[in-house]
Amino acid sequence: MNFKIAVIPGDGIGPEIVGTSLKVLDKIAEKYDHVFDYTEVLAGGAAIDACDTPLPQETVDICLASDAVLLGALGGPKWDNVPGDKRPEAGLLALRKSLGLYANLRPAILFDELKASCPLKPEIIGNGLDIMVVRELTGGIYFGEKGRDGENAAWDIMKYTRPEVLRIARKAFDIAMKRNKKVTNVDKANVLEVSRFWRSCVEEVAKDYPEVELNHLYVDNAAMQLVINPKQFDVIVTGNLFGDILSDEASMITGSIGMLPSASMADGKFGMFEPIHGSAPDIANQNKANPIATIVSVAMMLRYSLDLTKEANAIDAAVQKTLAQGYRTGDIFSDGMTLVGTIEMGQKIIENL
Amino acid sequence: MNFKIAVIPGDGIGPEIVGTSLKVLDKIAEKYDHVFDYTEVLAGGAAIDACDTPLPQETVDICLASDAVLLGALGGPKWDNVPGDKRPEAGLLALRKSLGLYANLRPAILFDELKASCPLKPEIIGNGLDIMVVRELTGGIYFGEKGRDGENAAWDIMKYTRPEVLRIARKAFDIAMKRNKKVTNVDKANVLEVSRFWRSCVEEVAKDYPEVELNHLYVDNAAMQLVINPKQFDVIVTGNLFGDILSDEASMITGSIGMLPSASMADGKFGMFEPIHGSAPDIANQNKANPIATIVSVAMMLRYSLDLTKEANAIDAAVQKTLAQGYRTGDIFSDGMTLVGTIEMGQKIIENL
Ligand SMILES: CC(C)[C@H](C(=O)O)[C@@H](O)C(=O)O
Ligand SMILES: CC(C)[C@H](C(=O)O)[C@@H](O)C(=O)O
Repeated sequence: MNFKIAVIPGDGIGPEIVGTSLKVLDKIAEKYDHVFDYTEVLAGGAAIDACDTPLPQETVDICLASDAVLLGALGGPKWDNVPGDKRPEAGLLALRKSLGLYANLRPAILFDELKASCPLKPEIIGNGLDIMVVRELTGGIYFGEKGRDGENAAWDIMKYTRPEVLRIARKAFDIAMKRNKKVTNVDKANVLEVSRFWRSCVEEVAKDYPEVELNHLYVDNAAMQLVINPKQFDVIVTGNLFGDILSDEASMITGSIGMLPSASMADGKFGMFEPIHGSAPDIANQNKANPIATIVSVAMMLRYSLDLTKEANAIDAAVQKTLAQGYRTGDIFSDGMTLVGTIEMGQKIIENL
Repeated sequence: MNFKIAVIPGDGIGPEIVGTSLKVLDKIAEKYDHVFDYTEVLAGGAAIDACDTPLPQETVDICLASDAVLLGALGGPKWDNVPGDKRPEAGLLALRKSLGLYANLRPAILFDELKASCPLKPEIIGNGLDIMVVRELTGGIYFGEKGRDGENAAWDIMKYTRPEVLRIARKAFDIAMKRNKKVTNVDKANVLEVSRFWRSCVEEVAKDYPEVELNHLYVDNAAMQLVINPKQFDVIVTGNLFGDILSDEASMITGSIGMLPSASMADGKFGMFEPIHGSAPDIANQNKANPIATIVSVAMMLRYSLDLTKEANAIDAAVQKTLAQGYRTGDIFSDGMTLVGTIEMGQKIIENL
């Protein structure tokens, strides 16, 4: 089959990890007889440098004309002093909004081979962790009105509408149905009006999923529970800001942040896929970055946007095998393992395909 | 000396832990020849039950006429279905606001004797943890305008004014000067206008403290760093909502949540002191609750509001000694220790005074 993929290498280690991941995808194309048409486009710092805007309209157009988008990582200290609305992050937010990517799926999985890098004690993680954070991505305080009262104050509005909450809640319950049928809603309903509203919408959706167990946690409590008892979680659904904080915390407790992919989905099958980690400018262009998070993001893309389940599974299996063979990039290295660079890690995974 | 203390036992385990803590304070009075005048007042669930409001005006008046306030814990499932503005939490927020308690100090300390309860691996906690979270407590989204757009949406405004940020930043830098001279400001300046404003105000205050090292973290990154590298932190300063989340996470990584006090300070020396933990209705009235967080909150009260440093140190030392003797309530029990109830724990601490 023939697929159009928009590719945003981005900044820092982005181009390296994306380059390596596309080699893996090339191998899938060859082996399973598909054609992946890549169109490389600019966003973030690279776009600021080239076109003085973090998100050229051309990028949006090409993404929308594609079956899926693969993104490396955006941003870096180079653009720290650019004004707020022109920063790489502004480009990322605009990209999410203009592509309608309202559902951010962030799996926090502990890779068996990497238990040694988990910061939590073994008795807490038990036989592993597998949490799916479903974060609302195009609403809330990220996209609310904002402003200043002269020199004296500044403000942002955290707002959610009914359709926004209903659709993300549906997404979370649909995902839970394919997993362990448990949804934890996280909000701050004891203080925020928007959270009380959010919670009532989630409860409305829950009625359509009688098999799924729903519980509610306040965000402060959720931040604690992730540390003390992460095994209680299956699917977490939450708003944009709380999801930003909790998904990062969840990925960190796995100790596997260089390994974790994410999907940002629109209605239907269209989505953007990227590693959870950042652009790590300190190790850029040194063949040191761990490409695995991006490679498994490619697997997520095959599974969620292109319906190529077999091919996605093949990538995941090749990654597992490569880890089992003892190959490690610097970030996940431990005694007795074989240290490899970005390119070599990609090659080993391709050999295992 | 003669001091007026307003006492809010509160709900759940509140009355037990406050009762035990006041016995400790009685012993201090006797030993050091002070008079503490207690006036018991209502707030939270107890006030809803008795006066149909979570914060009677009389409570505010008596607190304001006192030298300090000691609070147990508020809330519980019994009042979960009370409307938003009449809930125990609303009483707590109104109390903070009407007493002008803008600075919430939440130490996250790992007690040496309790290393076994810390969820993080020993190599991460090293020789201990000692973080002070300074949370803004009377502004931000907790007290912003809020509302609904009919059935279709709801919103809350996160706003900060210059004076609000300047005074909490000053508080944080003053505290850092007495500690390790490092302040980490936590915000979401890559997305929120209010955070960009907040950050610029913090930087302004920093100029008056050339000896203090200031760095900035985004809140998502801070949530990760607390898990992976908590030893980098000395003083954390942040807004109301982020402080709620991060201080709970910080207290949880110590594994000592039943042990941690907090102070909520107004301008000058007036403050309210309470344990960090909640009202734990499931173990209320069973002589099971750990009173130590409340007892060390009393110590904080002596130190911060009443200038009784010697007396405060005596309480802290008696707590340490009691732990070293092996006495433990259920929440911090481990093999080989002696299990005691709320009352017995208080008695042991008094004996050690
Ligand atoms: C870079 C930043 C704007 C972004 C966010 O806050 O959404 C990032 O932290 C993420 O989680 O993807
Ligand atoms: C009970 C709740 C309103 C409160 C808060 O969010 O401030 C609590 O979580 C706290 O941190 O003291």
